[in-house]
Amino acid sequence: MASDKVFAAIMGYGIVGSGVAEVLNMNRDKIASSAGRELKLKYILDIRDFSSSPMAELFTKDFTVIENDPEVKVVVETIGGVGVAYDFTKRCLLSGKHVVTSNKELVAKHGHELLAIAAKNNVNYLFEASVGGGMPILRPMVTCLAANEIESVCGIVNGTTNFILTNMRECTMTFEDALKQAQQLGFAEADPSADVEGTDACRKISILADLAYGRLVRPELVQTEGIKNVSVRDVEILRNFGAKIKLIARFVYSGGKLMIWVAPHVLLPGHPLINVENADNGIMVKGNALGEAMFFGCGAGSLPTASAVIADMVDAVRHTDKRLDIGWTDCGSDWISGGEDFISRWYVRDESGEGHITSPTDASGVSMHMVKYRILE
Amino acid sequence: MASDKVFAAIMGYGIVGSGVAEVLNMNRDKIASSAGRELKLKYILDIRDFSSSPMAELFTKDFTVIENDPEVKVVVETIGGVGVAYDFTKRCLLSGKHVVTSNKELVAKHGHELLAIAAKNNVNYLFEASVGGGMPILRPMVTCLAANEIESVCGIVNGTTNFILTNMRECTMTFEDALKQAQQLGFAEADPSADVEGTDACRKISILADLAYGRLVRPELVQTEGIKNVSVRDVEILRNFGAKIKLIARFVYSGGKLMIWVAPHVLLPGHPLINVENADNGIMVKGNALGEAMFFGCGAGSLPTASAVIADMVDAVRHTDKRLDIGWTDCGSDWISGGEDFISRWYVRDESGEGHITSPTDASGVSMHMVKYRILE
Repeated sequence: MASDKVFAAIMGYGIVGSGVAEVLNMNRDKIASSAGRELKLKYILDIRDFSSSPMAELFTKDFTVIENDPEVKVVVETIGGVGVAYDFTKRCLLSGKHVVTSNKELVAKHGHELLAIAAKNNVNYLFEASVGGGMPILRPMVTCLAANEIESVCGIVNGTTNFILTNMRECTMTFEDALKQAQQLGFAEADPSADVEGTDACRKISILADLAYGRLVRPELVQTEGIKNVSVRDVEILRNFGAKIKLIARFVYSGGKLMIWVAPHVLLPGHPLINVENADNGIMVKGNALGEAMFFGCGAGSLPTASAVIADMVDAVRHTDKRLDIGWTDCGSDWISGGEDFISRWYVRDESGEGHITSPTDASGVSMHMVKYRILE
Repeated sequence: MASDKVFAAIMGYGIVGSGVAEVLNMNRDKIASSAGRELKLKYILDIRDFSSSPMAELFTKDFTVIENDPEVKVVVETIGGVGVAYDFTKRCLLSGKHVVTSNKELVAKHGHELLAIAAKNNVNYLFEASVGGGMPILRPMVTCLAANEIESVCGIVNGTTNFILTNMRECTMTFEDALKQAQQLGFAEADPSADVEGTDACRKISILADLAYGRLVRPELVQTEGIKNVSVRDVEILRNFGAKIKLIARFVYSGGKLMIWVAPHVLLPGHPLINVENADNGIMVKGNALGEAMFFGCGAGSLPTASAVIADMVDAVRHTDKRLDIGWTDCGSDWISGGEDFISRWYVRDESGEGHITSPTDASGVSMHMVKYRILE
């Protein structure tokens, strides 16, 4: 029976796309039981040649084959970027297909538009894998915290920089050496700028804020500092206290205003995120009824990310007639600022001096220091 | 318009029930926006007198008022136990009302029957708050890990025992003294047996296994050891290594067989659950695609638990016409065993000797030791 199967397509057969194909095959029965129907892969779109793949007959280089096949109900976009990925996503939604993605750049930049198109066409645009990789975070924040005003979110959302910072501390390496090692081990790309400059983390925290408040937070408005300037000297000073430097993406909502920023922070011993090491991700969400909840897991990788992508495919299939009501609108930017006014303790060091921890102050109170990182309380 | 509102009732105005009323009021707008409709409280059932409460006019002592009011679509059961709570839940489901609960005893014991009744009547029986209190765990495990075979779950799921063990370590107190303090501070009940003997943790791990495999795990079959025999001497020995004793509920699934048990375990420094202190809960789930994910949060308390209860109310309201497909069936018990055969390292101590850590072995390899706790790897 046709109703026992839902046909799907994957666009982009890279690390995540190939993982989706692998997990769909590996966990076929569990996925069918979760979705109530078999999820059957019909096409894989990629411009490269995969004629010797065991799935060779599924490959196509022609997007319109997918676009024009009414049998395809769910499309996975794992192309990345905001070029063809944007065009193809839009056209899939317009032709009444659910789209599921791990593409944080596209969601952060065009999510509000794509979600509006999805709503108009009564299909879902879902992107759990765009934040935290395989780690569950977007769906729990939206559904399990549905009764909460979200007061703040902070997290380690970029595995590459966390891997580099872990190695700088554990092996007393400079940033440059730790980056080189991460590249050799496949934890950093040849062009690592989106990771080490904080751009990737910035996109992810923007998506979290979009969802938390239903209002667009343009990533280019998020104050973003990467980890390039983290020196091994500070890493060592802090290590002696059991403290660690980590790249933290965070926002704090209060009185209708959002403070949102990405910067290296100092975590003191006992902080729930302090053991989030290597390429793992960890995110804390604070709701006004729940208090704090933390989510931790593997933030990247082929099968973990595929796990999140397929969870979205299952959700889309279970909601074919009634779409999930998520989205955000562009309300301008006057409710958004950086973290300058946020009061916390800081780790500071002058060129000559030893590091120490200040009393609570906003950014102006530490402006005279060469090196300054907030303490994540 | 009637369709703009959904009427709800709370049965049992204790710590959780009163929290639900408070959060429904406090976060009215956010909840309405999440549910797509206002959730309006119509009745509160309690045998006690609340005539001086600001919500006095909502109270009733007569269950049939709720049962016979067709306007009431969602009922919160926060009575506890398996007596009237069971009877009222069944009758609500039979009269076509969604039921939402934090009652782990009832879910663990009669969940399969109540879910079957819910299915037959096309309503939802939801119980996120029954495990982990406010912390999201059941919904993420079912939805976000929908593409995974669940390989194992382990967690700190009882706040009372975690509070006692934290205090034994931090203040070098005996179990008896720490229990007394927990009772004075309201973290343990006058009759603490369900907590300290591990019964509460046993019910929660049973529910997690029920959901993970769709098969009933009767709590009385779960090998359960509490924390009464944990001695301050072992707590101190382990503290010197930065290690901690915690009550762990866990299961491991392999080759169609489930090993499931509750017992004090030793956590070594760096373990992701080691900083879960006081009354907090933390649960790790391992899926065959995702790898490990951890959830951490406030495991009890009025508003946090209410947060989870209302998340279920919102979900029920959003799925009034199409119920959430969860449930499990009784497939007997020959697939279930305790942890005897599970291989791990152990912390052991003889009456005369110092504590030490063994090589990996099953339980038979440490049977000669007076004191033995598994290492949670």
